[in-house]
Amino acid sequence: MSQPFSSALLENAVNEFAKLPGIGRKTALRLVLHLLRQEEESVETFGNTIIQLRKEIKYCQICHNISDSDICALCNDATRDDSTICVVENIKEVMVVENTRQFRGRYHVLGGVISPMDGVGPSDLEIDSLVTRVAAGGIKEVILALSATMEGDTTNFYIFRKLAPYDIKISIIARGVSVGDELEYTDEVTLGRSIVNRLPFNETFKS
Amino acid sequence: MSQPFSSALLENAVNEFAKLPGIGRKTALRLVLHLLRQEEESVETFGNTIIQLRKEIKYCQICHNISDSDICALCNDATRDDSTICVVENIKEVMVVENTRQFRGRYHVLGGVISPMDGVGPSDLEIDSLVTRVAAGGIKEVILALSATMEGDTTNFYIFRKLAPYDIKISIIARGVSVGDELEYTDEVTLGRSIVNRLPFNETFKS
Repeated sequence: MSQPFSSALLENAVNEFAKLPGIGRKTALRLVLHLLRQEEESVETFGNTIIQLRKEIKYCQICHNISDSDICALCNDATRDDSTICVVENIKEVMVVENTRQFRGRYHVLGGVISPMDGVGPSDLEIDSLVTRVAAGGIKEVILALSATMEGDTTNFYIFRKLAPYDIKISIIARGVSVGDELEYTDEVTLGRSIVNRLPFNETFKS
Repeated sequence: MSQPFSSALLENAVNEFAKLPGIGRKTALRLVLHLLRQEEESVETFGNTIIQLRKEIKYCQICHNISDSDICALCNDATRDDSTICVVENIKEVMVVENTRQFRGRYHVLGGVISPMDGVGPSDLEIDSLVTRVAAGGIKEVILALSATMEGDTTNFYIFRKLAPYDIKISIIARGVSVGDELEYTDEVTLGRSIVNRLPFNETFKS
């Protein structure tokens, strides 16, 4: 629907919100009208928080995760295992892996995956810096935790080749049926991988 | 899901977005990560537009519609009919009625409807100022375009009583089956109103 605005201020604000992904003009208008009903200070806080984020955000010099300082909280945490690096695509995946509480090592954020279709090559990603970290020594294992897509696999192979000269273990997260899945509805490729990568029963309950 | 943030800036921004209606924490994170990928200037524009809106917005002194100046664009428009006032609940309904392109008069925004459950009484709404407008003369018709709810009807009756002393036409928008509705699935109350308020066939195609 076209919206006949009686206010340019209102129209500008709606236009700004409508630029966000997944926010249409109707939703944008609803959000703006909500903000209009809030206290002036809280709207100011809203706007300034976002401006400040974009201005002051840093990326960790070690793992390239998002950070408030030069070295991120995860790289600074002395209780974490220095000898294992989990390689992920983006900062969002750092959060996803952290939420599993199954990993206590360090991270390395690539900033994407190799995707010729989108014009993303190895040099656009933080792959060289990963090799540098491994070359510096002290690393025993690199865990590849990229998406199970063609692009993810391409990137996995590329990194695997780059790290081959070093005496470390390179592992990849398991692919198989999701917890809670009914086999009847599982796709054949995934189920196939699950069968090929079957585990001794007594290992299944390790945590 | 709980999100282990490595950045307080990021966490603050996500918290601010998650305060908006209909935006959960996952969506908030997605929006914030999107903004992080944008140019610094465009994020600054985004934040400042919203702050400016809340700070500088005015409400039209005549119709109480949202406005950039003391008198809104619709009240200032000399081509519109001064003798008809359409009474609506909120600024959003002004847009909705404008979108129909069936009304060329003036508006009056009440700021809500009478709702004892929500603690909204007649004195919380712009009803007195509507009476003042009518009392000032020059108005031939007031069209009540409120929601077809109990609260809307209560407000309709209240306004009707308040305006009864004045020699004007007071009308209410028609209720009936929606355009495109199949009768089989129409609720009885609406269909009943449709039958009671039936129109001569040749009037149906007036626009």
